[in-house]
Amino acid sequence: MNIKQMVGEKAAEYVKDGMVVGLGTGSTAYYLVEALGRRVQEGLTMTGVTTSLRTKEQAEALGIPLKDLNDVKEIDLTIDGADEISSDYQGIKGGGGAHLFEKMVADHSKKVMWIVDSSKMVETLGAFPLPIEVVTFGYQQLFRLFEAKGYQPTLRLDEAGQTYITDGGHYIIDLHLGEIKHPHTLAAWLDSLTGVVEHGLFLDQVDTILVGHKDSVEVITAR
Amino acid sequence: MNIKQMVGEKAAEYVKDGMVVGLGTGSTAYYLVEALGRRVQEGLTMTGVTTSLRTKEQAEALGIPLKDLNDVKEIDLTIDGADEISSDYQGIKGGGGAHLFEKMVADHSKKVMWIVDSSKMVETLGAFPLPIEVVTFGYQQLFRLFEAKGYQPTLRLDEAGQTYITDGGHYIIDLHLGEIKHPHTLAAWLDSLTGVVEHGLFLDQVDTILVGHKDSVEVITAR
Repeated sequence: MNIKQMVGEKAAEYVKDGMVVGLGTGSTAYYLVEALGRRVQEGLTMTGVTTSLRTKEQAEALGIPLKDLNDVKEIDLTIDGADEISSDYQGIKGGGGAHLFEKMVADHSKKVMWIVDSSKMVETLGAFPLPIEVVTFGYQQLFRLFEAKGYQPTLRLDEAGQTYITDGGHYIIDLHLGEIKHPHTLAAWLDSLTGVVEHGLFLDQVDTILVGHKDSVEVITAR
Repeated sequence: MNIKQMVGEKAAEYVKDGMVVGLGTGSTAYYLVEALGRRVQEGLTMTGVTTSLRTKEQAEALGIPLKDLNDVKEIDLTIDGADEISSDYQGIKGGGGAHLFEKMVADHSKKVMWIVDSSKMVETLGAFPLPIEVVTFGYQQLFRLFEAKGYQPTLRLDEAGQTYITDGGHYIIDLHLGEIKHPHTLAAWLDSLTGVVEHGLFLDQVDTILVGHKDSVEVITAR
């Protein structure tokens, strides 16, 4: 069993009967959803709230009962991957392009769990490119602003080499920052920019982190 | 001549040969664009950057040369309407549903001019509903949050009674606040909310305001 599968399956054990569960997106969340599908077949009663069209299709195919984020009062637990987690448990997400919906779901969750392999645990954020979801109108003005700031922006392309379009109908600009010394300051600045729909900094949000090592899963209580 | 026409035509006089001009949206901006169309016919050389599909269609029909916001280095002057202007020259815009694109264009302008009739000049902002452009995914969670805060949200509908969809593909929630005592605090909070694409508070932005009275146009230097 690969590490992502081991962590995904371990996370599925945290889901209890009757829970409303936010289902993340990405290669580790994939194994979580597969494991939950098996548990639902075996009699688990749960409701999923998905964070992307991809996860929705996977969960539907597995027979996991789903509700729209609009139609739940609150989410008990959201389980999702992460692209980078710092030593003080701040995160970068959005490598898979789903961070807007992921953050919407997480914001309305009582508890948030991230599931990663140990390569995602870093001292300081920023080696992983920071995804910025932007409106398509006039986005090049933002691109030039990031360029002028020395943030080395790149416009994300899809596998066919076309501009990547998110589930929300926006573009993604990836910032190559190297090191993010002050994530809260950067987040507030990005929030203030017109045309930025959502950035990939997930701050002060995660409660529990499952870290997959070669032969074990480490459980970190972040807050 | 009605007051909106008088102000729109006066504003057109501020456009000089060679300028790149941001063209606002709404009933007063309509007359500005009409007047600029006539001046272009008479030989004015200018380039317009429009803030909505509506204004784009109007300007194109009048033969005003246009460029996309992406394709200009900077805008010399943006002229736009406003729904409410406080005594310290902060504004609410978005009654016409175009505030996202309007703010994008204004943010990249050297100078910003608002054109209004005197009924828009108030002591404190907030009698006019504050428009919040939101992503369609899970927007009811934001709606409930605004409700819980006592902000009396309403989802904007179009003339056919269907949910209004902006040029950017989002919904609009109008907040009925009565009085906005601390617009900067409110703006920062709204900026921080996941799912809020842009709010209608335009702060510290306008340079000149033309106010139409019954028989005259007042020129205010705001900053």
